[in-house]
Amino acid sequence: MASILAPNMHFAKTGSYSVVEPGKPKEAPTPSTGGGSAALSAACTRQASTVKQMKKDGKPADQIEKAVEELKRLRAELAVAEKANAGQGTEHNIDRKLFDETVLRRMFVVPAFEIHGGVAGLFDYGPPGCALKQNIVDQWRRHFVLEEKMLEMECTCLTPEPVLKTSGHVDRFTDLMVKDIVTGDCYRADKLLEDHIDDLLEKGNFSSSEADEHRKVQRQADAYSPEELGAILEKYGIKATTTGNDLTKPFAFNLMFGTKIGPSGALTGFLRPETAQGLFVNFKRLLDYNNGRVPFAAAQIGLGFRNEIAPKNGLLRVREFTMAEIEHFVKPDEKKHPKFANVSNVTMKLFDRDAQLGTGIVSSMTCGDAVAKGTIANETLAYFMARTQLFMLRIGMNSEKLRFRQHLSTEMAHYAADCWDLEILTAYGWVECVGHADRACYDLTVHAKATNTSVEAQKMLDKAVEVLQLTVKPDRKTIGMTFKKDQKAVCSALEGLDSDKAAEVEKAHSAGQPYELDGFSIAPGMVLFTRKKKMVQVVKFTPSVIEPSFGVGRILHALLEHSFSVRKEDAQRVVFQFAPVVAPIKCGVYNLQSGSKFPPIVTRVVDLLTQAGISTKADTSGQSVGRRYARADELGVPFGVTVDFDTVEDDTVTLRERDSMTQRRVPIAALPGLLRELCGLDGDVVAWKDALSAYPEVGASEASGPITLETTSRGVFSRPAALVKK
Amino acid sequence: MASILAPNMHFAKTGSYSVVEPGKPKEAPTPSTGGGSAALSAACTRQASTVKQMKKDGKPADQIEKAVEELKRLRAELAVAEKANAGQGTEHNIDRKLFDETVLRRMFVVPAFEIHGGVAGLFDYGPPGCALKQNIVDQWRRHFVLEEKMLEMECTCLTPEPVLKTSGHVDRFTDLMVKDIVTGDCYRADKLLEDHIDDLLEKGNFSSSEADEHRKVQRQADAYSPEELGAILEKYGIKATTTGNDLTKPFAFNLMFGTKIGPSGALTGFLRPETAQGLFVNFKRLLDYNNGRVPFAAAQIGLGFRNEIAPKNGLLRVREFTMAEIEHFVKPDEKKHPKFANVSNVTMKLFDRDAQLGTGIVSSMTCGDAVAKGTIANETLAYFMARTQLFMLRIGMNSEKLRFRQHLSTEMAHYAADCWDLEILTAYGWVECVGHADRACYDLTVHAKATNTSVEAQKMLDKAVEVLQLTVKPDRKTIGMTFKKDQKAVCSALEGLDSDKAAEVEKAHSAGQPYELDGFSIAPGMVLFTRKKKMVQVVKFTPSVIEPSFGVGRILHALLEHSFSVRKEDAQRVVFQFAPVVAPIKCGVYNLQSGSKFPPIVTRVVDLLTQAGISTKADTSGQSVGRRYARADELGVPFGVTVDFDTVEDDTVTLRERDSMTQRRVPIAALPGLLRELCGLDGDVVAWKDALSAYPEVGASEASGPITLETTSRGVFSRPAALVKK
Repeated sequence: MASILAPNMHFAKTGSYSVVEPGKPKEAPTPSTGGGSAALSAACTRQASTVKQMKKDGKPADQIEKAVEELKRLRAELAVAEKANAGQGTEHNIDRKLFDETVLRRMFVVPAFEIHGGVAGLFDYGPPGCALKQNIVDQWRRHFVLEEKMLEMECTCLTPEPVLKTSGHVDRFTDLMVKDIVTGDCYRADKLLEDHIDDLLEKGNFSSSEADEHRKVQRQADAYSPEELGAILEKYGIKATTTGNDLTKPFAFNLMFGTKIGPSGALTGFLRPETAQGLFVNFKRLLDYNNGRVPFAAAQIGLGFRNEIAPKNGLLRVREFTMAEIEHFVKPDEKKHPKFANVSNVTMKLFDRDAQLGTGIVSSMTCGDAVAKGTIANETLAYFMARTQLFMLRIGMNSEKLRFRQHLSTEMAHYAADCWDLEILTAYGWVECVGHADRACYDLTVHAKATNTSVEAQKMLDKAVEVLQLTVKPDRKTIGMTFKKDQKAVCSALEGLDSDKAAEVEKAHSAGQPYELDGFSIAPGMVLFTRKKKMVQVVKFTPSVIEPSFGVGRILHALLEHSFSVRKEDAQRVVFQFAPVVAPIKCGVYNLQSGSKFPPIVTRVVDLLTQAGISTKADTSGQSVGRRYARADELGVPFGVTVDFDTVEDDTVTLRERDSMTQRRVPIAALPGLLRELCGLDGDVVAWKDALSAYPEVGASEASGPITLETTSRGVFSRPAALVKK
Repeated sequence: MASILAPNMHFAKTGSYSVVEPGKPKEAPTPSTGGGSAALSAACTRQASTVKQMKKDGKPADQIEKAVEELKRLRAELAVAEKANAGQGTEHNIDRKLFDETVLRRMFVVPAFEIHGGVAGLFDYGPPGCALKQNIVDQWRRHFVLEEKMLEMECTCLTPEPVLKTSGHVDRFTDLMVKDIVTGDCYRADKLLEDHIDDLLEKGNFSSSEADEHRKVQRQADAYSPEELGAILEKYGIKATTTGNDLTKPFAFNLMFGTKIGPSGALTGFLRPETAQGLFVNFKRLLDYNNGRVPFAAAQIGLGFRNEIAPKNGLLRVREFTMAEIEHFVKPDEKKHPKFANVSNVTMKLFDRDAQLGTGIVSSMTCGDAVAKGTIANETLAYFMARTQLFMLRIGMNSEKLRFRQHLSTEMAHYAADCWDLEILTAYGWVECVGHADRACYDLTVHAKATNTSVEAQKMLDKAVEVLQLTVKPDRKTIGMTFKKDQKAVCSALEGLDSDKAAEVEKAHSAGQPYELDGFSIAPGMVLFTRKKKMVQVVKFTPSVIEPSFGVGRILHALLEHSFSVRKEDAQRVVFQFAPVVAPIKCGVYNLQSGSKFPPIVTRVVDLLTQAGISTKADTSGQSVGRRYARADELGVPFGVTVDFDTVEDDTVTLRERDSMTQRRVPIAALPGLLRELCGLDGDVVAWKDALSAYPEVGASEASGPITLETTSRGVFSRPAALVKK
């Protein structure tokens, strides 16, 4: 259950806490923003955690109040410290206005149904955004599904209620809401109370003790039951903010989109809030497909839907989003990973639980050390974290702006063993983009129980081991007298009990309790217990699951930000410096001069590259090549081919690299192979200087060094590069 | 609007007709199934069309009845003729049981939420089905989006009501339903009536005229209004079939899944029933993105949802499905296609309107001829039909089992210019898998009107042309007297009218009618009309759209069927003969013998191929290679690499081709390049015999010819192939 993922994020400015129920969005603690304020930040986090625990434990209000006062003092100190630290530490500043304007104008992402007025939290991907997303997903599939031999599935979004009832979403994927009784406008009830008290204290004239009383109520806003909160809203006379109308009583609002499946309307369904459930309910078939072997991983890339109350920040909190989730099933006591050695030297930035509650310092550590020291719970979890980091680097994310934050124990569900979020620094703060959770066997167990299905896997041991098996022997006489005509059925049921069930009976009886079996009450004395040694070579177990869960839209947004830059000579000239492997368009093709000779060559180059699977875009508009390069820069096109007079003579073109703006002279026939290498379409990406070393540099760089034409080993042309027009 | 696509299909056995409203599913006429019965089939189709038209025109019931009798006679004759023709013509017979069992067992497609009891019409793709679908979609993207430079978008599934109200889906995407008032079970009202009358006549004892009266009612079942049908159901005392309970009155049941967007519940939304609307509402931005130039095509691959009343036939009628749609925008009077010459020689099987109503014969024709003869309305429509056929062949569809069926004029929406469905022959009959529709400018116009947005494109002419422009000049005196304080607004509105609007005013006035303008009634005599010559070089127009719309699930199902075969030596040994380009797994890797030397080599080969982006699966189970080949055959793995003792010595392996079962000896290092060629990963697919010509054949074929080892030009090894174990 990837409940923690897509629509949740936290900003440097928010620091509220709430207990994370399975299936319920959470908020994360204030992260440390710089070395100077790290300890203060940690103190805040720790204190907030204490307050939360006190509320949970039902401590007296005055104690809570005191703890909250301390929290507020710490936060105020922190705010001062952070202001002083501004400019230190890892920061991410972009010209947000220019960024947003470019993303919209070049149609990376646009509001959905814009001409009809739009809908909050729904966005469409335009051509370059769509291609970028596709390339990210392709890389993900290659990096995880192909390389790790995962069993990829595609399950439906429409999900019948029993499935999500079982997973816990129907009951717990909720927030408390109130409605304007006239307009139907909705408000999150706790936020409304908090805002109201802020207003009240600001405008009113209260004695110190009165103000304290209001603050006390405000601080507990998110801890009240619907009934309590309803009474308080009434007491304060709180009305709808925009209209002043009366409000309904608070009620639990489920964040899932409901619908009716089938014509009768009898079957309630939901749009899945995550893709994970589809994999869990298919576990038995997946296990069969994998010839009964565990460990194995299943994966799914697909849509999730959450009816966010307040969608915001573009792609970061939306109502429909793409997720990519992995469920790696393992034997609970065997969480080593066979390929761990491949990643043990990967260095990661870890913001562990202790650091969040203590020093506040994010530490760099190798994956191997993190497991050896017990910072990360097990090899498999750590393996996936390292693989996630490698994936992020492959698609071009800035390595300085990645960190893993461990969940506090108060954030995790009771059954979870360990959880780490990959957070990416954006202009909105650190955004949770990938969750990594060791969820133990919770998910499989609940579905197994609800459907009476076995989710047990088995493992053949290298050699048989001796185990002590408990069996139950019915005392036929007593049973006959007690159950009469049912005695046969009862005896047969008792004899069919396996060792685990027999142990349950024994436990009940030794406590003097009867044991309920198929509706019959088996009282102490009705059975005898015997233990026998037995050699077994097959052990049965319910697998644990380790779940990396990716929010693709958030990753795309972060990648747009990390790739966003401007040319030094012109702060308004935007360049998206996409890694070639994900760039929406790999190559632009231009005619340097106008004239009827060039368009057929441009078309030929475009066709040649397209046939080779390279996304190519011709720009033969009458504008200057510089202007056309600039247009391509805005779409992050990494390479450009220019056709000129020399091309007509010798079938060579200039190939230009976006970031260095260097150019090399290359025969047209060599372009497909070169570009496939440069874009990593066949495997590893080959760097520009390595791939092009055999070709002469031309243009701007010519003056600064010798023409390398003569050194080419692949040279099929021999015209002095100095002749090439730029 | 791709209303005709995904959940609609027709079977050889059904032949009912219904008027196709925009946004409403249709049924297609009985297709011809063999040469012998072709004329009869055509006569049936023609007669059915006549009956439909008569009902539509409200002809007297006795005339309709007579026409229907004739239709029934023709159908009976056709049934006899078809029985006689069995075995002739194009047929598609597979062992359905074995097919279904294999598809399920090997997890190509499985019922969704199976352990929770499942939901009709919802299916999940398991690992091989998911990969197959992904490969089909990748090929589609390459064939259409990349090659044709289409603007691909990804729009949301959640769609607010006004968008689908505008498109016509809210009002017309409906069927008439009745509900069991106790259980809520739903029935399609017309089908319930038809079935009831069948039962009545079978069981009861009626005079000839009484029976005729009932038949008359039955035949008009689908033509009644909700009120009429309700009265008839009541008169017949029709109850719910399964319970005998009373039924509700008939009501229109919309096939879209509804939901509420946002917390207030005020905004009704639907899951899109097609992807097309997302492209239409983004038209303005797409036009800008394309620098204002038309023609251009937009494309989208994504989910569609339809709440089918009776899902059936596996993937052929489901409630959630993937579509791939293209909207090609053109100037309405310029439907030539610049690349038409590329396809003019493609021969297609065309079942045109006249043939369906006349000879009943499907004719083969080149694309060029079809346009020249006017069989297909225009070049662009024909171009896409040919491209669709080429796509189907590329992914491995059987060319004998493809045909294009033109829509009858009664099937098409009033605004549509021409429509052709690509139908694929399956075990369920001819299934409509791709629609090709020239929809004129309907879609853009309705959205423009509803949102008051301009959807006009403009074209710069090569040189200015003289046009006659009509302008309206208000007679200020009359207007002043009539409208008093509003005179200024009225004059200004009149002077702002463009030539087209002015023509509307003139038309009204010459008919003696007033013209309504912004709420003012402009009577004849209030204005003067003047015509002026003007030179214009820019023409404005609302683009027409040509829409190819693909049902990916149906295509996948058809491809599974067309690829399904059994080994000659064993009718239970299934082979999916997927084209390498779409095969879910490209290569299996096996160890011929057991022993510790082999697994590391197997792993090395797998890693090498995986790194090169080739989906590979090792099978190192202890079973015989033959058994493991058979297992791979069931998944349609086209190539197999076997590691043996010789591999240890010289790093060569045998590479086996699935269909011919021939094997060649190949160095491991050559595998990635060879397999990428064989699977068409870099462009065109290279055939086995061409790609492997340089490598020696081994195994079964050795006896029949000389070992070709010596002829190799790439030979890096020289061991006699006879040593290779098979």
